[in-house]
Amino acid sequence: MIFPHSSFVKSYLTTRSLQPENQESPIEHIRTDLVHPSLFYRRNHFTYPSFTSAYYWLPIRGLVEKPVCYSVQDLLRLPSRTIKAVLECAGNKRSLFEPKVFGEQWEKGAITQGEWKGVSLRTLLRAAGLKDAAKEVVVEGYDYGERTDTDTVHTYARSLPLDQAMHPDTIVAYEYNSQPIPFKHGYPLRLIVPQWYAMSSVKWIKQIYVIDSAFEGPFQSVDYVYYPYQESDEGAFPVTTMNVNSIIQKPSNMEVLNTGKHTIEGIAWSGEGLIKKVEISIDGGSTWSDAKVIPAENYAWVKWAFDWTVPVKGEYTLMAKATDSGHRMQPSTPFWNRKGYGYNAMEKVKVKVE
Amino acid sequence: MIFPHSSFVKSYLTTRSLQPENQESPIEHIRTDLVHPSLFYRRNHFTYPSFTSAYYWLPIRGLVEKPVCYSVQDLLRLPSRTIKAVLECAGNKRSLFEPKVFGEQWEKGAITQGEWKGVSLRTLLRAAGLKDAAKEVVVEGYDYGERTDTDTVHTYARSLPLDQAMHPDTIVAYEYNSQPIPFKHGYPLRLIVPQWYAMSSVKWIKQIYVIDSAFEGPFQSVDYVYYPYQESDEGAFPVTTMNVNSIIQKPSNMEVLNTGKHTIEGIAWSGEGLIKKVEISIDGGSTWSDAKVIPAENYAWVKWAFDWTVPVKGEYTLMAKATDSGHRMQPSTPFWNRKGYGYNAMEKVKVKVE
Repeated sequence: MIFPHSSFVKSYLTTRSLQPENQESPIEHIRTDLVHPSLFYRRNHFTYPSFTSAYYWLPIRGLVEKPVCYSVQDLLRLPSRTIKAVLECAGNKRSLFEPKVFGEQWEKGAITQGEWKGVSLRTLLRAAGLKDAAKEVVVEGYDYGERTDTDTVHTYARSLPLDQAMHPDTIVAYEYNSQPIPFKHGYPLRLIVPQWYAMSSVKWIKQIYVIDSAFEGPFQSVDYVYYPYQESDEGAFPVTTMNVNSIIQKPSNMEVLNTGKHTIEGIAWSGEGLIKKVEISIDGGSTWSDAKVIPAENYAWVKWAFDWTVPVKGEYTLMAKATDSGHRMQPSTPFWNRKGYGYNAMEKVKVKVE
Repeated sequence: MIFPHSSFVKSYLTTRSLQPENQESPIEHIRTDLVHPSLFYRRNHFTYPSFTSAYYWLPIRGLVEKPVCYSVQDLLRLPSRTIKAVLECAGNKRSLFEPKVFGEQWEKGAITQGEWKGVSLRTLLRAAGLKDAAKEVVVEGYDYGERTDTDTVHTYARSLPLDQAMHPDTIVAYEYNSQPIPFKHGYPLRLIVPQWYAMSSVKWIKQIYVIDSAFEGPFQSVDYVYYPYQESDEGAFPVTTMNVNSIIQKPSNMEVLNTGKHTIEGIAWSGEGLIKKVEISIDGGSTWSDAKVIPAENYAWVKWAFDWTVPVKGEYTLMAKATDSGHRMQPSTPFWNRKGYGYNAMEKVKVKVE
């Protein structure tokens, strides 16, 4: 017997927690543009909801002229939009903050990319007719449970300001990579808000309702808020779009290499504009050179690569920093905040050449 | 539709490298005594070997009176021994060293436990008849390739001193958990050396030969050696038995908990003697209490648990330290060494109670 199959190597999700299920993507090992559902990171606030999707209806309610309920079949008959987008958890890279912050200790893999097909949320809102007092649109999921900070049960819900809700690329999606959305990622309907951190892309949509005030749910007003100070809430502001960011996929940190030619490679993304430049340093940030960047669609990550010929044995600190079309650049020191959101300091990887 | 299957949660291996394949076990989430092959950590020095096991023979050669070749069927007819044992990579927990050391950045999961069935190596050596000059027994695997520090090709091979080779529990195994050994874990035959770090438990055995000197292969004389200094090889000594060690499986580091009752739980193991005591501190090491330890067989890990009622909100540093029957105890600071082997400092986990 020879074992061609059993010696096939592949990567898996990395478990951070099973109750609820939080698993990150082996992002260093992903080279495809459309991440397979089995490697799509999982971030849950509660146990998976159970509901009977055979009787599934999506209500659009609140401050609208004509409240309406859609079946999934109804949505399939409306004009569709397909969007390739990065989804990144606001807590991605949280484990890199110093001082350490509490919460799921994500490394670099709370990020994914795929193609979502669905109906623009504004199509549904216009059909329902927004009332003049409309200010925010709340999207509620089927997932609920207890939080550690209160004894009451909460449903996962988030709001969008009206302009973001009416953006044509904010969609109620029913397909991921040309298939029905996998259950763990929001089947049958998931909101997709490109460019925003993924807490806005509510899974298992239960209802959408329009309100005339600022939504006060705990996942809006307690979590997903930047608190710049340890001991006070002063200066707090909401988490919205993704910061400009990048990762080095290869080599890996503390890897031992031969002298010779190596390709440093990775991805970069931004929640505002496009990635315009990725720079690489092989001397810990003293000097920088441009990496070759392969342009990508709006909302997608770019791949970049840098050929490195190492003539001299020794230890090297490799760094990467991305710049977007809004001139935003990864900072050398991260913006520390108490709940650990939005980490985007320059990437750093140490290697030894022997 | 309801989705009972797709919302089933489970953990996977965590990928450190795919070339060669190095993946660690989600050890914090394992509660079984016999780890399933799919969650057994994978540590390779080279790509997987390919050989035709239909024509497999195991030669016993070198300084023996009667060199002999065994088929797997021959071994199945000899007296067998079944051993439940911990296998731990010598580099397990390497990522915890400060200063950081180069090499695979294992967290706590380069460890597993299972039941191995096979024939005592001494049965084979006695049948072959050791010559008087015999000093070490070399076990060579089918895996080979280039190392970063030389341009030549090396086969993975390790030696044992004669007393360890003749220990009745050092076995040539053909079954793992009552099944043929999975290919990635050494099919058809793997050496199992209980109590030693797992570099000695050579996979895919190609041959066993007896020599009259100290084996000088690079996995014996360069790797798997403790080098206490960064800049010199002074004081170097070989990696052999596992240090006394433990992990906290629950809660996880930086987890946020409610006030109330929590169980702190984990496992502990040692390569010399049995675990006699596991102590827990909830105040960062100032005071210690005994955990409840469930005794286990020789060579197996023990499970331990400690009930903790948290009356006061705040941050806590939980620690665990194990002591074995040889009075060895986990140290408060690790023994730093250049290649990062044998980390066994006390376990430490921070939590916040709110």
